[in-house]
Amino acid sequence: MTLSVDLNADMGESFGPWPMGSDRDLLGVVTSANVACGFHAGDADTMAETMAIAVANDVGVGAHPGFLDLQGFGRRRMQVPHGTLANWVKYQLGAARAMAGAAGGKVRHLKLHGALSNMACEDLDMARACFQAALEVDPDIILMVLAATKLEQAAKELGARYANEIFADRAYNDDATLVDRRQPGAVIHDADYAAERMVKMVQAGAIITESGKHIETRIDTICVHGDNAEAVALAKAVRAGLEAAGVTVEMFT
Amino acid sequence: MTLSVDLNADMGESFGPWPMGSDRDLLGVVTSANVACGFHAGDADTMAETMAIAVANDVGVGAHPGFLDLQGFGRRRMQVPHGTLANWVKYQLGAARAMAGAAGGKVRHLKLHGALSNMACEDLDMARACFQAALEVDPDIILMVLAATKLEQAAKELGARYANEIFADRAYNDDATLVDRRQPGAVIHDADYAAERMVKMVQAGAIITESGKHIETRIDTICVHGDNAEAVALAKAVRAGLEAAGVTVEMFT
Amino acid sequence: MTLSVDLNADMGESFGPWPMGSDRDLLGVVTSANVACGFHAGDADTMAETMAIAVANDVGVGAHPGFLDLQGFGRRRMQVPHGTLANWVKYQLGAARAMAGAAGGKVRHLKLHGALSNMACEDLDMARACFQAALEVDPDIILMVLAATKLEQAAKELGARYANEIFADRAYNDDATLVDRRQPGAVIHDADYAAERMVKMVQAGAIITESGKHIETRIDTICVHGDNAEAVALAKAVRAGLEAAGVTVEMFT
Amino acid sequence: MTLSVDLNADMGESFGPWPMGSDRDLLGVVTSANVACGFHAGDADTMAETMAIAVANDVGVGAHPGFLDLQGFGRRRMQVPHGTLANWVKYQLGAARAMAGAAGGKVRHLKLHGALSNMACEDLDMARACFQAALEVDPDIILMVLAATKLEQAAKELGARYANEIFADRAYNDDATLVDRRQPGAVIHDADYAAERMVKMVQAGAIITESGKHIETRIDTICVHGDNAEAVALAKAVRAGLEAAGVTVEMFT
Repeated sequence: MTLSVDLNADMGESFGPWPMGSDRDLLGVVTSANVACGFHAGDADTMAETMAIAVANDVGVGAHPGFLDLQGFGRRRMQVPHGTLANWVKYQLGAARAMAGAAGGKVRHLKLHGALSNMACEDLDMARACFQAALEVDPDIILMVLAATKLEQAAKELGARYANEIFADRAYNDDATLVDRRQPGAVIHDADYAAERMVKMVQAGAIITESGKHIETRIDTICVHGDNAEAVALAKAVRAGLEAAGVTVEMFT
Repeated sequence: MTLSVDLNADMGESFGPWPMGSDRDLLGVVTSANVACGFHAGDADTMAETMAIAVANDVGVGAHPGFLDLQGFGRRRMQVPHGTLANWVKYQLGAARAMAGAAGGKVRHLKLHGALSNMACEDLDMARACFQAALEVDPDIILMVLAATKLEQAAKELGARYANEIFADRAYNDDATLVDRRQPGAVIHDADYAAERMVKMVQAGAIITESGKHIETRIDTICVHGDNAEAVALAKAVRAGLEAAGVTVEMFT
Repeated sequence: MTLSVDLNADMGESFGPWPMGSDRDLLGVVTSANVACGFHAGDADTMAETMAIAVANDVGVGAHPGFLDLQGFGRRRMQVPHGTLANWVKYQLGAARAMAGAAGGKVRHLKLHGALSNMACEDLDMARACFQAALEVDPDIILMVLAATKLEQAAKELGARYANEIFADRAYNDDATLVDRRQPGAVIHDADYAAERMVKMVQAGAIITESGKHIETRIDTICVHGDNAEAVALAKAVRAGLEAAGVTVEMFT
Repeated sequence: MTLSVDLNADMGESFGPWPMGSDRDLLGVVTSANVACGFHAGDADTMAETMAIAVANDVGVGAHPGFLDLQGFGRRRMQVPHGTLANWVKYQLGAARAMAGAAGGKVRHLKLHGALSNMACEDLDMARACFQAALEVDPDIILMVLAATKLEQAAKELGARYANEIFADRAYNDDATLVDRRQPGAVIHDADYAAERMVKMVQAGAIITESGKHIETRIDTICVHGDNAEAVALAKAVRAGLEAAGVTVEMFT
C-alpha cells in the first residue's frame, strides 16, 4: 500500500493595495489552498485571482473563513454568539463558492482561520456551530481539522467528511496541542528537519511529540506556510522529502 | 388573458445594532424581496433572518448587491474598475445564495442597488460587467432591470432571463428616466394615486410619463418601499388596487 | 451644603443611514454627553451634529471610545494588546477633540464604551493603559469611571481628574457590580422608582444594593439612556426627582 | 541668498498585518512626512510608530487624510457631499494630532491623499471645503498644495499658510498638470535625471514642463516616494543632488 498525503497552505491573504504571501510560488508546491474570504483578509479581486491560479494548477480550493476583523487579521479572540458565527461561516463559504465557480473550479474543503480556529479547537459547541453551518451550505464539503482536537470531534459527530491536519513547522505537546510559539523550538525553521519529521509522522500514522510520544491519528494533510522565501523553501523541502520517501503528495479525497 | 405582475422591495437593510425598514410587514405584501448582501447594508445575521421570513412567506428571494460603502449606504457614486465590480457582484451573490440555501430557499433574481444601479443604468459596459458576473455564478438567475435603460439592454444582449421593473412612487420623464427627486411631484406619497397609476401602466403595458406619453414596455415587477409606515401603506394600496382591477399579483417567472 | 450631580448619556450612536437614539430630546435633559467616536458607532457627520447640539445646549462633551467593531457595536469582548488599545483611545479621543473644537466646544471627559469598559472594569492593567493614553492626549481630561471598580482605581492611581458614575436603571450587587441583565429586576423600567432610588443614593453618598447594603462612594454623575421614548421619560423623571429633592443637576467639575 | 526646499513623502501606509513602504529608510531622507490617518490606509498602531520615528528624526509630521475607502486605498473617485468631506478631514486631522502629540511631536501640515487630492485639484469648492475644515481644527496648519492648481488657489483665498509642492518623479504638461501615467515618460525612474530636474526647477523657481516651458511658481517642497528600493534610491539621489547644488534641504516654514 502506498502512503499519500495532501499539502495545504493559507492563501489569498492580500487585501486591496497590500500584497501578502507567495501564492504563485506556493501554488506550485501544495495540493490544497485555503483561500481567505474577505473577513480577516482577502477581497473579491484577490479571491478571484488566487482561485484562478489554483484551478490552473489543479490545486484543491478551500474556503478559509475567519473573524470579521481585518485590522487584526482574524487573530484576536472575539466573543461572538454561535448563531452569528454560523452565519459568518455560511456567508464566507457562499462567497468563496461563487468565486471558485466563476473561476472554473469548486470549493472542496473548509478550514477555519486564526483565532476562530484556535477557539473552536477548544470549544466543541463552537466547532459544531461553525461546521454545521458549512454543511448546511454544502453537505459534501470536506472539513479540514486539526487532528485530535474538538474540531476533529465535531466533524466526526456531525458525520461529515473531514481531513486531519498536522503542522510541518510546529512542535507538539504530549496532549497533541501545539507548543506555545514563545517556547524555544516551538516553530521549526530548518527545512530538512521539517521534511524528515513529516516523513516520520506520515509513516508512523502518528503525531510525534517533543518528548517522542506517538499519538496515533489519521494524517490527511500537512499545513505549510508561504509568508516568505524561507517558508516556501520549507514547503518545497517537505514535499521533496515526502516524495523521496515514497509518499504520494496529492489532494485528499 | 389575465394580467399579472410582481411586487418587489429592498430588504435586509438593517446592520448590526441598527434596524432599518419594515421587513416583516412588507414581506406580507410583496412577492419578491431584494436582500442587501453586506457591502452597503445588511450583515450575515440580517440576511439569515430576512431570508427565513421571505421563504416562510413564499416571497421570491433576490440578491441586492451594492458598492462597498456601508457609511454611504451604497448611494455614493464610486469609480471602480469593471473587473472589480464583477468580482463584487459574484462575491455578494455567492454569499446570498449560501444564506438563502441555508434558509431553505434559493436566490431567484438579482437587482443592483443604489449608485451601482444608477451608474449601470447609464453605462452599458458597466451593466454588462455586473450582469455577466452574476450569470457566471448562476446562468439561470433572473436580472431585475429598470425598464428601458442600459440595464435592460445589457440583460437582453446577454440572452439572460430578466424582469422589467417600474417604480410605484416615482414620476417618469419622457425618456423613461425618473424625474429628479428634487423636482416637485417626483416622489409620489399619495397611496391611492400610486395604486391607480400602477393599474393604468400595467393595463397599458407602458410607462406613462408626466406629460402623458406612453412608452411601451413589458412590465414584470413594480418596486415599492418599506422605509416607514407610509411606505408600507402605499405598498398595500398598490397591491389592493391591482387586485381590485383584476391583475394577479405574483412572483415573476 | 447643596448636593449636586451630573446626568450623562451615550450619544452620537447613529451611523451613516442608520439613526439611533433620541439625542435631541436627551440633550435637553442631561448635562454630559458621551459621544461615540466612529469605532463602534458614530461617524464624522454624526459626531459633528451631536456635538453642535450639545454645545448649543451647554451640555458637557465627552469622548466615548470603544472597540473597533461596528457590526458588534463594541459589545463583543475582544482580546486586543494593551498597546493597541492605548492607540485606539488616543486616535478616537483626538478625532473627538477636533470635532468638538470645530463645533465651538471642547472634550471635557472620556468614558469607555461597552465591552471595552466592561473588560477594563475588571482588569486594572487594561484600565490603566486606556486612561494613560487619554491623559497623554489631554492631561486635564476628566475620566468618567464606574464607581468602585478597577476603572476608579486606575484613575486614582494615575492622579487623574475623574467622575464617579452610577446607573439610574440598573440594580447593584453587594460588591458594587451590576446585577446580571438576565436576572429579574436587573434593569429598572419604572421611571418613578428610578428617580426615587437615585435621590436616595445621592443623598446617602452611597450605592444602595439590592440587599439594602450601602457602599459609600463619591457620586459625581448618573448614567441614563436614550434608546427609546421610555428611556427618555426615565431620564426626565430622574432629573425632576433630583431637583424636587433639592439636588442641583449640573455638569461635574 | 541660499535656496532651500523641503522633501516630503507619504508614510504610515501599512495596515494591520500588511506592511507597506520603506518608512524607516525614507525618514532618514525626507524632511516632512505625510502620515495616513486610517481612512484609506494606516491604523492607530502604524500612526503611533511612524510618528515616533518621524519625531526622533526631526522630520515634520503631516496629516494625510483620504477617502474612506481602505480596499481602494483612497484612489477611487467617490461623490461625497462637501459637508461630509469637511467632517472627514476634521476627524482624520484630529486623530493625527492626538497621535502626534502623544509621540512628542505635533502635526505641522496637511496634505490631501489620492483621489481626494486629485478631485480637489480640479474643484475649487471641494478644495475649499477640505481646507476650511482643516483650518477650523488648527488655524496655523500649513496646507501642502500641488503648485498651480485649485488647491493652491483655495489655500491662498483662505489666507492660510501653505507650501507649494512639485513632484520629483512626474513629468508636467504645459498647464502645470501632471502627464497622464499612461503616457511614456510620465513617470521618471532615473534617479540622476530626477535629481538634475529638481535642481533646475528649484533654481529656476519654476515648473519646467516636457516642452521646456517654465511656469513660475514658489517651490516649497518636493514629493518623493518610498514604495520600493528604487524609489528610496531616487529620493536619496534628489536630496544629494540638491545639496551638491548648494540647495539647503530642510523643513518648510
